[in-house]
Amino acid sequence: MSAWAEWFTAQRAEREEAGLQRTLRPRAADEQVIDLASNDYLGLSAHPEVRRAAADAALTWGAGSAASRLVTGTTTLHAELERELAEFTGHEAALVLSTGYHANLSAVTALAGKDALIVSDAHVHASLIDAARLSRASIEVVAHNDVAAVRSALASSGKRAIVLTESVFSVLGDAAPLAELAGACADHDALLLVDEAHGLGVRGAGGRGLVHQLGLARHPNVVVTATLSKSLGAMGGAVLGCPDLVDHLINRARPFIFDTALAPPAAAGALAALRQLRSDPALPRRVHHRGERLAARLRVPGSAGAVLSVPMPAPQVAVAAQAEALAEGVRVGCFRPPSVPDDVSRLRITTQAGPDEQRWNEAVEILARVIEEHRSQQ
Amino acid sequence: MSAWAEWFTAQRAEREEAGLQRTLRPRAADEQVIDLASNDYLGLSAHPEVRRAAADAALTWGAGSAASRLVTGTTTLHAELERELAEFTGHEAALVLSTGYHANLSAVTALAGKDALIVSDAHVHASLIDAARLSRASIEVVAHNDVAAVRSALASSGKRAIVLTESVFSVLGDAAPLAELAGACADHDALLLVDEAHGLGVRGAGGRGLVHQLGLARHPNVVVTATLSKSLGAMGGAVLGCPDLVDHLINRARPFIFDTALAPPAAAGALAALRQLRSDPALPRRVHHRGERLAARLRVPGSAGAVLSVPMPAPQVAVAAQAEALAEGVRVGCFRPPSVPDDVSRLRITTQAGPDEQRWNEAVEILARVIEEHRSQQ
Repeated sequence: MSAWAEWFTAQRAEREEAGLQRTLRPRAADEQVIDLASNDYLGLSAHPEVRRAAADAALTWGAGSAASRLVTGTTTLHAELERELAEFTGHEAALVLSTGYHANLSAVTALAGKDALIVSDAHVHASLIDAARLSRASIEVVAHNDVAAVRSALASSGKRAIVLTESVFSVLGDAAPLAELAGACADHDALLLVDEAHGLGVRGAGGRGLVHQLGLARHPNVVVTATLSKSLGAMGGAVLGCPDLVDHLINRARPFIFDTALAPPAAAGALAALRQLRSDPALPRRVHHRGERLAARLRVPGSAGAVLSVPMPAPQVAVAAQAEALAEGVRVGCFRPPSVPDDVSRLRITTQAGPDEQRWNEAVEILARVIEEHRSQQ
Repeated sequence: MSAWAEWFTAQRAEREEAGLQRTLRPRAADEQVIDLASNDYLGLSAHPEVRRAAADAALTWGAGSAASRLVTGTTTLHAELERELAEFTGHEAALVLSTGYHANLSAVTALAGKDALIVSDAHVHASLIDAARLSRASIEVVAHNDVAAVRSALASSGKRAIVLTESVFSVLGDAAPLAELAGACADHDALLLVDEAHGLGVRGAGGRGLVHQLGLARHPNVVVTATLSKSLGAMGGAVLGCPDLVDHLINRARPFIFDTALAPPAAAGALAALRQLRSDPALPRRVHHRGERLAARLRVPGSAGAVLSVPMPAPQVAVAAQAEALAEGVRVGCFRPPSVPDDVSRLRITTQAGPDEQRWNEAVEILARVIEEHRSQQ
């Protein structure tokens, strides 16, 4: 057995020992499960207009963009999406990328460098952590949502500084104190980068995001990243800010420059979803109302967005509860180390506008029962 | 003006001074240009079967995958694509990711770590360079295609080691000495990671890639990454290797775990393109024949793949030649620092199976004339 084969085997044994081995389970197109694990909060991925727009784009433009954005991969569809995304969220300009991961890698690496300081909230998403590492900036990780710690880190640094946070955090579903963080950044000439992956579509007037809700969309010290694969039901990411920022990224962000452009069906799908969201402000409201009722029923704190986090006593118990819910027709997420910020295994349940009232209520009752049964287990 | 606004302005002034400022130029769906800048070598992005498959997937599955592969983003479509990709390229298993960038980030960061050594060819793609940085391994960059330097780096290291190369290099279009590199890796129990982004679809029997052509597809020391956005005309990336490797990536590769799954229209488009390629082995042959004739006509060395590299005397001259070719109806790429491995600005022309003979010949004549006119300028 080669050294590499031995290494793979040993690594797998370690994961199995810890109850952390994962496998992929492909789902069929016609499955009847109520899916409360996905991030398709508004159900727009499957909306007839969104499906049709993606299909039309495939027929009109082809399956792919054929080259990077800077070569020949930018279509009028990308430009239209960027214009409407910026307008909707209240920013001057937007840049669309292939994934939300690429958006964070691009923004952080193009803005920070060896000469910069990154101050990062302890709970930010893996893509922001990787982005900070890749940038080669000095990194200071501060306690979750600790504004005083951010101020102190900025005050003691003479460097160009960027503060990383999310509007609504992806695992715990809580919100960041964005106004206070923007104030701290303004006081120290730093930039606040807010990942709105879980805020866009569910927070703010009509789903414009938490940054818009707080009046921070054109704050000179605020930059926003977002994803097109959650509330907007497609695939891709975006950076939102001023035209100078976008120009800078086009010229300097390696994960933008050296990557094939987002495929036309994804760009068209996101654009159609954005238009649906604009025309139906009841969608984000439904997510909130359902979320409030579900949180009360499960006896957990409400969410700042669509993510309800239900702590479980152990990884294996979380897995067992997830399996039982699925057997009863409801899929929920199960987050275990290393996908959680605090080593607490949990069910991650997303409230969704998609299912009709009857199916939603069925799902709530199933979850309430299954979770109650497993909660007390060790 | 804030410190950040000043910084953006200064950075832009530097780029303009150096003739390196880039902007995006959106193209329309009905443009009549002959596109020899894209990486859609086989013309499959626009093939009627590929368009239809992507459109059908949008209607059947929706515009997006709604969650990460490990949560609920893996569909039977992803599994089918992985099975057929592995079979076609001669590997045991495949893992599909959102972009080629993600494939390289995932493979390298999950295989290497602080305790590993990465030996990287000087000409590898930005995504492999970023992947190496992100892995936190020790990095030794060796001269381009220098097998002795690779052997020497491996011999002097006691660490788990990974050698990074491409089968066909993206800018210069030359090939790597893969058999010799695999031999060096076998002798030192190292892993050779080969990026087949520009090899798949154009090299090997029926476009199976250079790794397959050299009989290295199941070599125990060889791992392959590839993209679905070039010859396969869609979007996404893949890692190809043994089942243990795929299992390891599913569990450890952060850019796989924390990213929304590839959208169904892209997965279906790539799958349809793969089936077209399998059923029409004349496609890669046409790329070769056209490439040979074009290289002779332009008086440049032939390409190992579909990329012809034409050195130009200065960045501004390369830009002027590109603009004139476009004005005459032919789009070619123009690569300037920092997108070139050797500081030489060049036109990058891709030979393509898509255009019919008459259009192809027209394009060749236009390029021969425009390039001849600009070559002698300083």
